[in-house]
Amino acid sequence: MSLINETHDPALRSWVASANQPGHDFPIQNLPFASVRRRGTGEPFRGGVAIGDAIVDLAALHRAHPFDGLAAEALAAGAEPQLNALMGLGPAHWSALRLALSRALREGSALCAVVEPCLMPRAEAEYGLPARIGDYTDFYSSIHHATNIGRLFRPDNPLLPNYTWVPIGYHGRSSSIGVSPQVFRRPRGQIKAPDTAAPVLAPSRRLDIELELGVFVGPGNALGEPIPVAEAEAHVFGIVLLNDWSARDIQAWEYQPLGPFLAKNFATTISPWVVTLEALAPFRVPFERSADHPPPLPYLDDPRLREQGAVDIQLDIAWQTVRMAEQGLPPHPVAQTNYRHAYWTLAQMVAHHTVNGCNLQPGDLLGTGTLSGPRSDQAAAFIELTQGGKQPLTLPSGEARTFLEDGDTVVLRGWCEAPGAVRIGFGECRGTVLPAPSGQ
Amino acid sequence: MSLINETHDPALRSWVASANQPGHDFPIQNLPFASVRRRGTGEPFRGGVAIGDAIVDLAALHRAHPFDGLAAEALAAGAEPQLNALMGLGPAHWSALRLALSRALREGSALCAVVEPCLMPRAEAEYGLPARIGDYTDFYSSIHHATNIGRLFRPDNPLLPNYTWVPIGYHGRSSSIGVSPQVFRRPRGQIKAPDTAAPVLAPSRRLDIELELGVFVGPGNALGEPIPVAEAEAHVFGIVLLNDWSARDIQAWEYQPLGPFLAKNFATTISPWVVTLEALAPFRVPFERSADHPPPLPYLDDPRLREQGAVDIQLDIAWQTVRMAEQGLPPHPVAQTNYRHAYWTLAQMVAHHTVNGCNLQPGDLLGTGTLSGPRSDQAAAFIELTQGGKQPLTLPSGEARTFLEDGDTVVLRGWCEAPGAVRIGFGECRGTVLPAPSGQ
Repeated sequence: MSLINETHDPALRSWVASANQPGHDFPIQNLPFASVRRRGTGEPFRGGVAIGDAIVDLAALHRAHPFDGLAAEALAAGAEPQLNALMGLGPAHWSALRLALSRALREGSALCAVVEPCLMPRAEAEYGLPARIGDYTDFYSSIHHATNIGRLFRPDNPLLPNYTWVPIGYHGRSSSIGVSPQVFRRPRGQIKAPDTAAPVLAPSRRLDIELELGVFVGPGNALGEPIPVAEAEAHVFGIVLLNDWSARDIQAWEYQPLGPFLAKNFATTISPWVVTLEALAPFRVPFERSADHPPPLPYLDDPRLREQGAVDIQLDIAWQTVRMAEQGLPPHPVAQTNYRHAYWTLAQMVAHHTVNGCNLQPGDLLGTGTLSGPRSDQAAAFIELTQGGKQPLTLPSGEARTFLEDGDTVVLRGWCEAPGAVRIGFGECRGTVLPAPSGQ
Repeated sequence: MSLINETHDPALRSWVASANQPGHDFPIQNLPFASVRRRGTGEPFRGGVAIGDAIVDLAALHRAHPFDGLAAEALAAGAEPQLNALMGLGPAHWSALRLALSRALREGSALCAVVEPCLMPRAEAEYGLPARIGDYTDFYSSIHHATNIGRLFRPDNPLLPNYTWVPIGYHGRSSSIGVSPQVFRRPRGQIKAPDTAAPVLAPSRRLDIELELGVFVGPGNALGEPIPVAEAEAHVFGIVLLNDWSARDIQAWEYQPLGPFLAKNFATTISPWVVTLEALAPFRVPFERSADHPPPLPYLDDPRLREQGAVDIQLDIAWQTVRMAEQGLPPHPVAQTNYRHAYWTLAQMVAHHTVNGCNLQPGDLLGTGTLSGPRSDQAAAFIELTQGGKQPLTLPSGEARTFLEDGDTVVLRGWCEAPGAVRIGFGECRGTVLPAPSGQ
């Protein structure tokens, strides 16, 4: 299967006029999936596909039975409240549905009259989690982040010797994953100052973000049956933005020897629209690996992936305080990075996760880890951007910030651009911090 | 509510005669829950309650509508394929169902004729997971284990300074949790010998067990709303045996800085029968805390728990090789320990897990961590029992063992005994290791 096919043709235009605006996140070349309903109605959620300022309601479209074969099977699965069944079907079904939707949404399509009644305005939608997330794993795939944060937590030993060999990952908490816009309370936890003998229970004062991507798993594997790296991408449905909110003061005290726990499991926010791997095909780029680092072990190495193992996704972090909102100031960009700088690829995450026989299931979520780039202004967490909280950022309201204050909102954005391809976007991943609950 | 009530009366006898045998795991004072069906039939799973050598089929009993009120509501929930709904109902419902079942199963009960047709022989049953486990968290609640294993992984720094303050825990993998008897393949993974520059991918040569208990969560909490320690036990449905199989060579190389991952997520085995906290009431004992250690912070301290915060559960590890099985030798006990030695209690695990606002859900599973006791023969993992693999155990077949060989079976058992109470048991938690898959 060629990576670039008819659905990526930059000349395609949709009869949904808003999708043809240059720079729109959701042109006809994107067609991302979400779990949607009309806001405030209490209707059941169902699958939806974004097209310009509208959403194709897949449950409504399924009732019209416009497609045949694999596309019809995939549409039936996409009509369910969450997308686990669609994710479990695999690439042949996903491609068939994408092609059928692309053709139905093009200018001049004979199916326009069938699809048009199935549209809802995106401005009227609210979102559920795209899938029931059985297990959530968070990786650590930026060597720049690992080095930057390692320097803060272990100044004498920033990059551990296993990093260049092992796609380090750990299990995260599924229950507290929410869809953007997520509003959550500042966590309380045990915090120990360096100069005190005992910890105290207190609200985190070093509440941070981590800009990541979240990868939704497609078909799973049976327990005991690893997924070879060359087949790994067939097990990836698509990608969302992910904010792994992190309480650095809680983390510093709790994380040894078993890793982060309460420092991260109070909330994780993902963007609602899952951009499929097929939509990202025009933006694949070679997998960067410096000559200073060892080649991947054979189970993590696929010659094809060296040419196109990475994905060129531009990523942006913007910060808005309460005062900025009151003054009408939009969220202010504080850092930009790119997924192409990751040390470990999508396929390597999947192959490594399963090499011991661990079973993935449709709808599982894999975080990439914080996607800091090589330059200091490409840091994807505030602890890195502010040198451990020592160098505040100044926002357009004149306010200084190191970590998050109550009422602050953070917006993550992502998009892809490449010569000869239409720009596609991920929408936004937005979260707001409320005060900690009063407590003991 | 008194901890000890009518259902614990040692004089109670059941019309199911096998339940009255002294030393049986499942007397009428126990009444544990499982997800069951007749083996080999492909029937749907449903809730069951063990009584002697039989199981009360809760779906069949529900169809007979023998109970009223809360007991009837709990029975309806218990009739479902998995017990999440029953777990979510809470202690008043659980107690009502337990009392109704206890009365119905007693000698002379007028309901004998209704219940008797709902029994299936336990020898004909097979088990599913008791609940859909949304999230699995593993704690580290034995200070003896933390010290023993810390000494092996970090000789200069065995017990980290946070241990005596923080109920350390981390997120585990839900998808690979299986019910006893579980058969799984030896994991492959990256292993690095101290004297080599690069790791290799190879089957684990240091495959170990961890004897733990697993705690099923009852009613959950909303995101952002911690569960106070004094209310924590109302959120605990019951307890199973748990074997956290661990590949020590993979663990040693991968675990820094984010904790264990592939070293543990290839399989976790739990026993099928969930013993309720109410059944364990006669076996509550004071929470031990040496004067050398700091008192718990207020959010982890409840005066009532000091008197009865711990549970006196005797635990046993037995090992059987292929040769032993061929010679007709039963699994051989290699260590005994007791849950009462845990440094952190059930209530402290729940209160700590939620203090930052993290939401628990009915059916979540909390592992206690390896329950090593203070003496060296109470070590609950082979790495501790064999001094890091340096001092092999000798089994009755004459075979020496440090870590698990292919074909080995491990059986965990647990039971409670106390003056004036009838002994109750947990059944067994059994797992067998198959050879690693052939691979790259």
